[in-house]
Amino acid sequence: MATEALTHPNIRNGWFTESMTMWPGQALTLEVEEILHHEKSTFQDVLVFQSKSYGTVLVLDGVVQCTERDEFTYQEMITHLPLNSHPNPKRVLVIGGGDGGVVREVVKHESVEEVVQCEIDEVVITVSKKYLPTLAIGYEHPKVSVHIGDGVKFLANHSEEFDVIITDSSDPVGPAEVLYQASYYELMFKALRPGGIICAQGECQWLHLPLIKNVITFARRIYPTVAYAYSSVPTYPSGQIGFILCSKDPKANLAEPLRSWSEADEERLCRYYNAQMHRAAFMLPQFTKTAVNEALETAQQEGSAGNSTP
Amino acid sequence: MATEALTHPNIRNGWFTESMTMWPGQALTLEVEEILHHEKSTFQDVLVFQSKSYGTVLVLDGVVQCTERDEFTYQEMITHLPLNSHPNPKRVLVIGGGDGGVVREVVKHESVEEVVQCEIDEVVITVSKKYLPTLAIGYEHPKVSVHIGDGVKFLANHSEEFDVIITDSSDPVGPAEVLYQASYYELMFKALRPGGIICAQGECQWLHLPLIKNVITFARRIYPTVAYAYSSVPTYPSGQIGFILCSKDPKANLAEPLRSWSEADEERLCRYYNAQMHRAAFMLPQFTKTAVNEALETAQQEGSAGNSTP
Repeated sequence: MATEALTHPNIRNGWFTESMTMWPGQALTLEVEEILHHEKSTFQDVLVFQSKSYGTVLVLDGVVQCTERDEFTYQEMITHLPLNSHPNPKRVLVIGGGDGGVVREVVKHESVEEVVQCEIDEVVITVSKKYLPTLAIGYEHPKVSVHIGDGVKFLANHSEEFDVIITDSSDPVGPAEVLYQASYYELMFKALRPGGIICAQGECQWLHLPLIKNVITFARRIYPTVAYAYSSVPTYPSGQIGFILCSKDPKANLAEPLRSWSEADEERLCRYYNAQMHRAAFMLPQFTKTAVNEALETAQQEGSAGNSTP
Repeated sequence: MATEALTHPNIRNGWFTESMTMWPGQALTLEVEEILHHEKSTFQDVLVFQSKSYGTVLVLDGVVQCTERDEFTYQEMITHLPLNSHPNPKRVLVIGGGDGGVVREVVKHESVEEVVQCEIDEVVITVSKKYLPTLAIGYEHPKVSVHIGDGVKFLANHSEEFDVIITDSSDPVGPAEVLYQASYYELMFKALRPGGIICAQGECQWLHLPLIKNVITFARRIYPTVAYAYSSVPTYPSGQIGFILCSKDPKANLAEPLRSWSEADEERLCRYYNAQMHRAAFMLPQFTKTAVNEALETAQQEGSAGNSTP
């Protein structure tokens, strides 16, 4: 009661305004009711505030990571797209995802026996447990174990161990930059079991098409099957986020779920994802379809993994 | 050169911030290079500015209507969804759409013989011709004729004349409020030829689900086939806009294009729309699917048009 009110450079006159050099000239603003937490962790600026219309909001280095109101679309899609594209996922690795939302979704799959989460910044887990309990509830599941540390180092020590690897990272500025490089995709390839699938935060087709093309090109040199999908997320820049999915199986069709829930289970388990939305996520606007095809062709012309004809 | 710099209440410190009571607690902000035009027309506040990263922006009553950078997604989807769902569209009516972008898209369909546009606010057409020539180019096509006046009055004088009616309106606050009412949907029904299709701006599933459910319910009492679709639009609130589509044909499947372009023509004619995106637009997130089904069931329980079983 006697403590001074918290402040944050991104909050002025009761409104939070996102700041990011990756999308100049545009910003989302959210009305703030109260700043709940602010600290500089070893890795980044961590802010939690209560918004007027989006519930609790987690912000890292000035960029919205999730809001209570719309977080489900991102968590469900980054998780169920790869898991329902795998015939029988048993061991799942999550890199990043400190808020706990992804592991919350992973354990909805009964085939999964073990989920390992590797998060570099323990502060994100701590504040999420305190302020975002509907996400951090994922940590309470007995199948989930948490490793605090660097995702790249963790992967280097694991070989053919996981059926699915999900990279739930922030943008490629700061601690997550290394997660958008070919060497990281090679480490994930090595850590995957045969037939394994990865799904990584893949930025926004409206803002970062050159970056997306670059990732798809180097990913296609490593994995025989690569695809781009996306989901609506109102509080992400331009209202959308994409995913890079890769499979070790050259015959995989990631756009068609191999396994799906009954309609009643979809209603019970999900608020955004369903089998139709799985398919829709891979149907690309004309400008993205052209760009993705160019990136795939570039990789194939130079020789690539798998058995595809150049 | 000697004129005073223009000002606008939504522009402060070089940034435009959207204002709308329909989505409290959140706003898009765009960096402004120059205010190009500002006037109060008979119907609304009309602002045009040059943005730093979205080209020229048209704003009515403080709400972004279109930007040069992302306008194509809205114009293509609101036009090609109904036109490619119709077997042979010849006469098309556009209500609203003063920027000209929709008629620009309509005339891409070779079957179309005549496009009538009815816009209530001539000022919107005038400023679009001056500041948004890549949209207003639609007005130069010989098949297009423009009627300045009230859409409701216009429809009341037309009966079984149009194959497709597109309502490209602003939000249901101000001059467009009447376009979200059952009486308007009845007038459109009467003005449609047998087998005719309407497509109307249908607000955002993330923000206006009760409004959307209400429109779907009354629409389903009038039309035997009603569906909701949506498109990504980065500069609309929550990055998305929806469409209400209705057909006089009880057997119509609006989600499957009856006609489609070749892949080469899709590449030539469109930047967002293609046959896959047509299908994807009708694949709904779980929360919207549930809401739309509830609305359709409500209408059917109370008796409705067409031959569907209650």
